[in-house]
Amino acid sequence: MANFADRIIAAAKEKKSFVCVGLDPRVVQIPGHIREKASDAFSDTLEAVEFAITQFNEGIIDAVADVAVAVKPQRAFYEQYGIPGDRAFERTVKYAKEKGLLVIEDAKRNDIGSTAEAYADGHIGMVKLLSGKEVPTIDVDAITVNAYLGSDGVKPFLKYCKEKGIFVLCKTSNPSSGEIQDLLLEAPIEAEVEETVFSRMGTHITEWGKDFVGESGYSSVGAVVGAAYPEQAKHLRKAVMPKNLFLVPGYGAQGATAEDITSCFNDDGLGAIVNSSREIIFAYQKSDRYKDHPEMFGDAAREAAIAMRDDIAGALKKVNKWSL
Amino acid sequence: MANFADRIIAAAKEKKSFVCVGLDPRVVQIPGHIREKASDAFSDTLEAVEFAITQFNEGIIDAVADVAVAVKPQRAFYEQYGIPGDRAFERTVKYAKEKGLLVIEDAKRNDIGSTAEAYADGHIGMVKLLSGKEVPTIDVDAITVNAYLGSDGVKPFLKYCKEKGIFVLCKTSNPSSGEIQDLLLEAPIEAEVEETVFSRMGTHITEWGKDFVGESGYSSVGAVVGAAYPEQAKHLRKAVMPKNLFLVPGYGAQGATAEDITSCFNDDGLGAIVNSSREIIFAYQKSDRYKDHPEMFGDAAREAAIAMRDDIAGALKKVNKWSL
Repeated sequence: MANFADRIIAAAKEKKSFVCVGLDPRVVQIPGHIREKASDAFSDTLEAVEFAITQFNEGIIDAVADVAVAVKPQRAFYEQYGIPGDRAFERTVKYAKEKGLLVIEDAKRNDIGSTAEAYADGHIGMVKLLSGKEVPTIDVDAITVNAYLGSDGVKPFLKYCKEKGIFVLCKTSNPSSGEIQDLLLEAPIEAEVEETVFSRMGTHITEWGKDFVGESGYSSVGAVVGAAYPEQAKHLRKAVMPKNLFLVPGYGAQGATAEDITSCFNDDGLGAIVNSSREIIFAYQKSDRYKDHPEMFGDAAREAAIAMRDDIAGALKKVNKWSL
Repeated sequence: MANFADRIIAAAKEKKSFVCVGLDPRVVQIPGHIREKASDAFSDTLEAVEFAITQFNEGIIDAVADVAVAVKPQRAFYEQYGIPGDRAFERTVKYAKEKGLLVIEDAKRNDIGSTAEAYADGHIGMVKLLSGKEVPTIDVDAITVNAYLGSDGVKPFLKYCKEKGIFVLCKTSNPSSGEIQDLLLEAPIEAEVEETVFSRMGTHITEWGKDFVGESGYSSVGAVVGAAYPEQAKHLRKAVMPKNLFLVPGYGAQGATAEDITSCFNDDGLGAIVNSSREIIFAYQKSDRYKDHPEMFGDAAREAAIAMRDDIAGALKKVNKWSL
C-alpha cells in the first residue's frame, strides 16, 4: 500500500477535488422514509438506529463517491449507540472503501504508551489473536489524534504511518479553541515571533512527520487546522508545517469560506483536504429543490459536494494555487 | 442517583479505600487456562479474545469488589478488537456495576458541540431512539475527557454531571506530558506565580465544576493528575482545584509511591482516588507465591489491591490526612 499522503493526493488529482465528506449521521435528520423502513423492520430499538444510519450512509457514499476524495465518519455519532452503533460504523467504513473512498476516522483518540499502541493497532494497524496471528479490525486509512499528552501519545501511531495516516489536532475551528490552543508562551525578549500552544503543537507535528514524507512531498502525519482562523492557518502552512497534510474542518456550517481555506494550501496547489459534514449530507433539508423530496437526499448531497468542489477550485484559481 | 463525587466518597468511606483498579486486559498476559478455554470454544478468532477478556475481568472484579472503590477499564484495550472487543467492554461494565463497583471509563474522549454531546449522551447519558424515546447505552459512572478543544468540548458532558462524572486530563503521569502541559505562559512582569498550560487547564476545570459540588464538598467534574509529579499535584490540589476530585494514575508500574500521592489529597483526607492497573490485575506474574499458579490470578490481584489500599492508608496517616 502506498504512503497515505500520496494516496490522498493521487485521489485529489484523479477527482480534481479536495472535498472530504463528514459522515455525521444525526438520526433526527435522516429522511423519514429511511426511518420508517427501519422502524418497520426493527421497531423502536438500537438496531433500527443502526439500520437507518447504515442505509443513509450508503446512499450518501453512492452519491459522492466520484466527487469526494475521502469520507470522515465522526465516531461519536456511532459509538453513542453502543454495539449497534459500532456495527453501523464498521459497515460504513467497509462500504466507503469498496466505493474507492479513503476513510478518515474522526475519533480524536489519545493515550500513552501501550494504550496508545492499542488504539493504533485497532484503528489503523493490526491486532494479535490468541495465537499471535495478526489481523486488521477497524482498519481505516487515517485517524485523528489529540496530542495533549505529548509524543508518548503519538509515537505508537507512527509505526503504521508508512501506509496509513494520522491528523493531529493543532488549531481547531470551534469558538473556544483558543482557551488552551491560543495561549501565548513565555519567550525570551529577543524572540522574533510570538509562540502559542498551537504553534508549538505544529512544531511537534512537523517533527513527528518527518520520516513519513511520500513521493508527493507530503507527510502522512497531518494536522487538523480549522478554516475559521485563516491567519493562523497561513502561519502554520508557511512557517511551521510546510510538508504536513492539513485536514480542514469548518467549511460551510462552521462559517468559513473557500477564500478562508486557500491559506491552508501551499503554492503548489496541494497540501489540504477540506471537510464539510451536515451541509453536504443533509443538503436536502436546506434546498428549495429537494426539501419536499427527502428521498432524493443523495442527489442533494451530490450537488452540494460538487458545488463545494467547484467553490474551492474557484478560490484556489483566484490566488493562483490551482494545480489539479 | 446521588452526585458522582458523593458516591465515590461514600464508597471510599464504606470500603476504607481509595483504590481504583485499572482493567487493561493485555491479552498476552491473561493466564493460560483462560486463553486455552477461549481457544477451545472459539478457535483463533476475535470472539475468543472477547471471551478471554470477559472471563479474566470477571475474575478480577470478583476478587477486588470489596477492596476497590471503582474500576477503570481503559477503552483502547477493548475497542482495538472491533465489535467483539466492544462487547467485552459492555459486559465488563455491567458485571462491575452488579458487583457494586463504580465504573470510570478511561476513554479520553473529546470533540465539540453536537459531537461532544453525542459522546456525553452515549457514555454517561441517554441516547434517543427513532421515536425520540431515551435509553442509556454505554452508561458508565464517569468518563475521562481531554479538553484541548476548550469549553466547547466539556460543556456537553456537564448536562449529566449532577449524577455522573468526568475527569478532565490536567497533568498526566507520562514522561512526555510536559511537552505541551508544562509550557510556561507569557505573564505580566508583576505576576507572582508562574502559570503553565496544565495550571490554566486546572483553572478551567474548577470553573466547569463549580455547579456540581455535592454534599461531600467535592465536584463531580474531576481532574486527572498524575502521581509522578507530586510538586505539581500539590500546587493543583491547594491553589487551583481544592474541590475537584482527582483521579491519580501512575501508582505502581509508573513509578510513583504512596508518599508521592498524598499531595493529591486535601487536609480532610479526601479528594482523590488512585489507580493501579497491571500491578494489580497481573500481580500473579510478579509474585513468588502465585507465578506458578496463574489460575489463582484473582487471589494475587486481591492481595495486591489490599497491599495498595494499606500502603496509601499508611502514607496518609503519616501526614495526618487519614479520615476513613
